[in-house]
Amino acid sequence: MTDNTQVLGISNAIVDVLAHIEDSFLQKIGAPRGSMTLIDEQRAHEIYAMMGPAVEMSGGSVANTVAGFANLGGHAAYIGKVKNDQLGNIFMHDMQSLGIDIRLQPASDGASTARCHVLISPDGQRTLQTYLGACLSLDIGDITASAVGAPKLMLLEGYIFDTPHGQAAAAEAMRLASTNGTVVALSLSDSFCVERHQQAFLDAIRKRVRMVFANEAEIVALTDSADFDEAVEKIREFEGLFVLTRSEKGSVVVNGQETVVQRADKVDKVVDTTGAGDAYTAAFLYGWAQGKTLQECAALGSRCAAAVIQQVGGRLEKGVLDD
Amino acid sequence: MTDNTQVLGISNAIVDVLAHIEDSFLQKIGAPRGSMTLIDEQRAHEIYAMMGPAVEMSGGSVANTVAGFANLGGHAAYIGKVKNDQLGNIFMHDMQSLGIDIRLQPASDGASTARCHVLISPDGQRTLQTYLGACLSLDIGDITASAVGAPKLMLLEGYIFDTPHGQAAAAEAMRLASTNGTVVALSLSDSFCVERHQQAFLDAIRKRVRMVFANEAEIVALTDSADFDEAVEKIREFEGLFVLTRSEKGSVVVNGQETVVQRADKVDKVVDTTGAGDAYTAAFLYGWAQGKTLQECAALGSRCAAAVIQQVGGRLEKGVLDD
Repeated sequence: MTDNTQVLGISNAIVDVLAHIEDSFLQKIGAPRGSMTLIDEQRAHEIYAMMGPAVEMSGGSVANTVAGFANLGGHAAYIGKVKNDQLGNIFMHDMQSLGIDIRLQPASDGASTARCHVLISPDGQRTLQTYLGACLSLDIGDITASAVGAPKLMLLEGYIFDTPHGQAAAAEAMRLASTNGTVVALSLSDSFCVERHQQAFLDAIRKRVRMVFANEAEIVALTDSADFDEAVEKIREFEGLFVLTRSEKGSVVVNGQETVVQRADKVDKVVDTTGAGDAYTAAFLYGWAQGKTLQECAALGSRCAAAVIQQVGGRLEKGVLDD
Repeated sequence: MTDNTQVLGISNAIVDVLAHIEDSFLQKIGAPRGSMTLIDEQRAHEIYAMMGPAVEMSGGSVANTVAGFANLGGHAAYIGKVKNDQLGNIFMHDMQSLGIDIRLQPASDGASTARCHVLISPDGQRTLQTYLGACLSLDIGDITASAVGAPKLMLLEGYIFDTPHGQAAAAEAMRLASTNGTVVALSLSDSFCVERHQQAFLDAIRKRVRMVFANEAEIVALTDSADFDEAVEKIREFEGLFVLTRSEKGSVVVNGQETVVQRADKVDKVVDTTGAGDAYTAAFLYGWAQGKTLQECAALGSRCAAAVIQQVGGRLEKGVLDD
């Protein structure tokens, strides 16, 4: 099988619905500031009805990374389930318009395309209420050998473990990847997601995953550590690369006993921190796909994270690496 | 009939699809920079397929004004046709969440909700490609006495004259308004729209319209004038108020022989000029509904136009007039 795909992303395909709120709104709906809550369709209608005017844009963590990777010039492919409805078509358009090869067609029936209600507090803090909709029906049947192909790297999202058949789908994707020499990477999504699926993530990392993307809270949760330093020591026993982002403290790449430390790029004005981690991952992988050193990959990551922080919206735009 | 509505807007209900482009894209699709072109469904699919990733938000000129008026604290109602599809539901949500009374329910069949492809050049210039979809089916049957009610003022959009039955619908709305003592206002939309419907606009202004909102190019086109000063002299013969916006030159309100001149507010940084005129109209009407002087209304208009220019997106946000 010939496949010039560098990165295949597999994740929840979500359209973000963004609105400004006061913190009293969060109290009213019982959502902790900064949390991500999975909600059902009825609750999604209730939340939406209570929200003010919103803006819609394609989102989803690993989908953002794949979009950023394509925008940087990489060859990307994507598996994520939307319905064939207006929001699903918007999501697919936004991916395809970047040249991303879509490996799973929209579902003709079932639940509507997933929506994440992004509630933005006056200080910029974001609280997420996610209705997974069509994503809930992603299953092992969607993960065929032809859909997976033979990419250089496959990037899974922790969040797909939240769907009923997501774990089985991820297992099948990892199995297919191993027959093709594809490197399997896992992005840990968020620390609550890590708590929900800690054992499954650890099993996957021990068996197949050779590159883990995580922030400080996520790696601490995964390893049951007291702090970041303890987590770093614990992960040295695993085979493979751990790419750890630490916001303004930069990032640390751990590869067994090897450690690469990268400073964060200077940010003049924080406009919107959404997607900073996803952009870092996109740029790191872009460097990696070109055979750059870990230090160079991490430096690219810092640069693109800083760029995304200084724009509105979570997806890395074209031309960020142009001089 | 009791109706505490201050402003009822009647206009094309449109969801904007915004994307950054290079000017070469405009050449490729044959669109003059800054123009608004009406396109059919097939062309809409073609344009969209050629566009990069986009952001979706509710739009439409007079719909923006009505939203801004409600956000300032005014009592507003709205008539505009969407389909009962995801984009139509988004449009309706964004209006209803501001407390706007929706007087026309989404259509259960027919064309999908209107989309305006907003192509943003690197210098911020916007070029519009509009697929009117469900708006095309607005007709006289939608303009019932109960839908129109008895608002203090009814604001029509020039663009509705572009739809097959829009002119008849506008005529019926104006007829109903005259039986209720409702003031009829007309926003001229754009200078090309004025060229398309010059005679119909002039007839309406002579017969029923008592407040006209226009920018420099629109009033020059309406009156076949060589320049703004000539246009101002010509409109003095009409009964009613002409509220004329002139970008950084501020605004001029003409009422027969009376003239009120208002400076533009200082803008530190132009972020996005979309909706500046719509916001001006919203604030002017908000002052008017409270019985303020023309000078005070125009000053409110300048203040809100400046606020919208310094934010992303065309709809006036809450709290602009708070101190």
